[in-house]
Amino acid sequence: MIAKHGGNIYEIAKQYGIKEEEIIDFSANINPLGIPIKLKETIISNLSFIENYPDPDYKDLVAAVAKYNCINEDYVIPGNGATEVIFQIAEAVKPKKSLLLAPTFLEYERALRRAGSDIEYYMLSEGNDFKIEKEAFLDRLGKEIDFVVICNPNNPTGQIIEKEVLVQILMRCKASGINLMIDEAFIEFLDNEEDSSLIDYLDDYDNLFIIRALTKFFAIPGLRIGYGLMSNHDIKEKILNSKEPWTINGFAAISGPVLLSDTKYISKSKEFFKREKKYMYNELGKISGLKVYRPNANYIFFKLVSYDGDLKDMMVRKKILIRQCDNYVNLSNSFFRVAIKDRESNNKLIKALKEVLYEG
Amino acid sequence: MIAKHGGNIYEIAKQYGIKEEEIIDFSANINPLGIPIKLKETIISNLSFIENYPDPDYKDLVAAVAKYNCINEDYVIPGNGATEVIFQIAEAVKPKKSLLLAPTFLEYERALRRAGSDIEYYMLSEGNDFKIEKEAFLDRLGKEIDFVVICNPNNPTGQIIEKEVLVQILMRCKASGINLMIDEAFIEFLDNEEDSSLIDYLDDYDNLFIIRALTKFFAIPGLRIGYGLMSNHDIKEKILNSKEPWTINGFAAISGPVLLSDTKYISKSKEFFKREKKYMYNELGKISGLKVYRPNANYIFFKLVSYDGDLKDMMVRKKILIRQCDNYVNLSNSFFRVAIKDRESNNKLIKALKEVLYEG
Repeated sequence: MIAKHGGNIYEIAKQYGIKEEEIIDFSANINPLGIPIKLKETIISNLSFIENYPDPDYKDLVAAVAKYNCINEDYVIPGNGATEVIFQIAEAVKPKKSLLLAPTFLEYERALRRAGSDIEYYMLSEGNDFKIEKEAFLDRLGKEIDFVVICNPNNPTGQIIEKEVLVQILMRCKASGINLMIDEAFIEFLDNEEDSSLIDYLDDYDNLFIIRALTKFFAIPGLRIGYGLMSNHDIKEKILNSKEPWTINGFAAISGPVLLSDTKYISKSKEFFKREKKYMYNELGKISGLKVYRPNANYIFFKLVSYDGDLKDMMVRKKILIRQCDNYVNLSNSFFRVAIKDRESNNKLIKALKEVLYEG
Repeated sequence: MIAKHGGNIYEIAKQYGIKEEEIIDFSANINPLGIPIKLKETIISNLSFIENYPDPDYKDLVAAVAKYNCINEDYVIPGNGATEVIFQIAEAVKPKKSLLLAPTFLEYERALRRAGSDIEYYMLSEGNDFKIEKEAFLDRLGKEIDFVVICNPNNPTGQIIEKEVLVQILMRCKASGINLMIDEAFIEFLDNEEDSSLIDYLDDYDNLFIIRALTKFFAIPGLRIGYGLMSNHDIKEKILNSKEPWTINGFAAISGPVLLSDTKYISKSKEFFKREKKYMYNELGKISGLKVYRPNANYIFFKLVSYDGDLKDMMVRKKILIRQCDNYVNLSNSFFRVAIKDRESNNKLIKALKEVLYEG
């Protein structure tokens, strides 16, 4: 089975007989500022670029990623979205038993199972607001586990792990011969990403694999650009040796450098989310019947505590799509995730939630 | 190692200190009519489409492929280029021992080895103009072989297999429990593709897997659209269960239906190639020192019979890139493949070849 994710407005539109464009989609966590103007210009003025095969080494894209992150070009593996890199790392590392957070993004488990790994879960507890408890987590490392995945900030909960804890996990993994994959696909949405990213640890830890994506922050889920960062030369070679050629399309290849150097768009987006995250957290917090978790990225996770109806269905009838989290391990159909969008849309979400919850 | 293919003008340009745009690239077999105007219009008027995740089921693209080929939608697996589907089929079928033509397109072997298959070659003989000898080929089936790949027309030789022979191979494979993958990525360039395609046999043969691409015929190697056709429900389910999501980008997803219904572009291209194939075959045939093989697709394969220099290097110095075939099994550095391009470029190729071969 293909895992169900947010963002499948096509299926919902068909099911409810609504036009796709009439639905406000809070189920996919995409920057509402939309694609940068520079990206549009780049594509329009390079339409014929797709008449050529992309550079199989994607040198310009790799150079842009390295520059953006101030790291060695040798550390970069560009991907057809972050997903390709997640699958490539799983196939190249071929873990025997992997430890995943529960809940977390669904594709790690699919990628790892495809690569032949058994899966164990670290159950994030509701009582601890779905945060990792350091000692309990460290205790899970070093037995049969040979691969660990941490999504930071975690999807769908939006919770971050303190860097100090992350570093302790990284060191314990290194000491126990465990490879650690950190998915930082949403890290640019944090108020202070440097306080959470492990990029600076790549030089010294060859058991560290970092996943990044341009998808969410640059509003390009349809263009498909992600990348992996690693100093482990052997694993990188394994990936290059077995990868399919030309997986990244030509538009993505030329757009990556344009996006990563668009400092104006980047700072405008960061300011926007700093403000809008607060607004949404406050406004949703005022709605009785919801337990709202403090957001770090561009989405908010909440639990429905006193409503018996089908919230997702009721919202779709109001042409608003939210992500019900019932297909995540360790979550029930009472949990939901909503993207932070533009103020007008956000207010429509809040209004609709109030209508459903207060008026039934 | 990533296999070396044609079309890597980036590396050549860097190596020779020439600008990419100054090189005429005969090493990639792309329709010189360029991308259809309708495709440009589609992309420009749908730039914001990439702000959404693509439909994970790619329903519109699947429907367009089915309509174009007059087949059941259930038979279609869309891919990020043909390559993704080749790798998916190899992984899902997991053959033990595969029989490949030698020479043939390099990615079958990479995909099959990645899936754990051993490889045997059917050596196409120069004495038989690199055509399959029916009885000798049939004799290879039914022992340990459980998977066969035939590229028709074959790349890089351009030779086709008569349909009657293909059908006998298909039947023998079926009787012996062998899966047969036919790569028809270049079949639209044939004067009469119906005389060669096995699409009509899908209904009755669940051991048949057909690969198609929009890449070459619609001049979109950078956009990435290909597909697989199969009636084998089990293998299709296996592929869907283990595939990465959203591998096909949004522009490709909306462009596929536009391209496949552009009957004007299709017929114009077919007329163009019918004429230009003849012209190039005749003109290259007049150059002494070359043995030229009759083309069927949009490229011509030839052998250098009386020249000791480095033809590829000499041509690059004239800013013309041709495909030297020395990294194919069963070919030497005397074999070359050139694309059929527009008349002006074709004449430049012919002139340059004459200069190098006659003047040294």
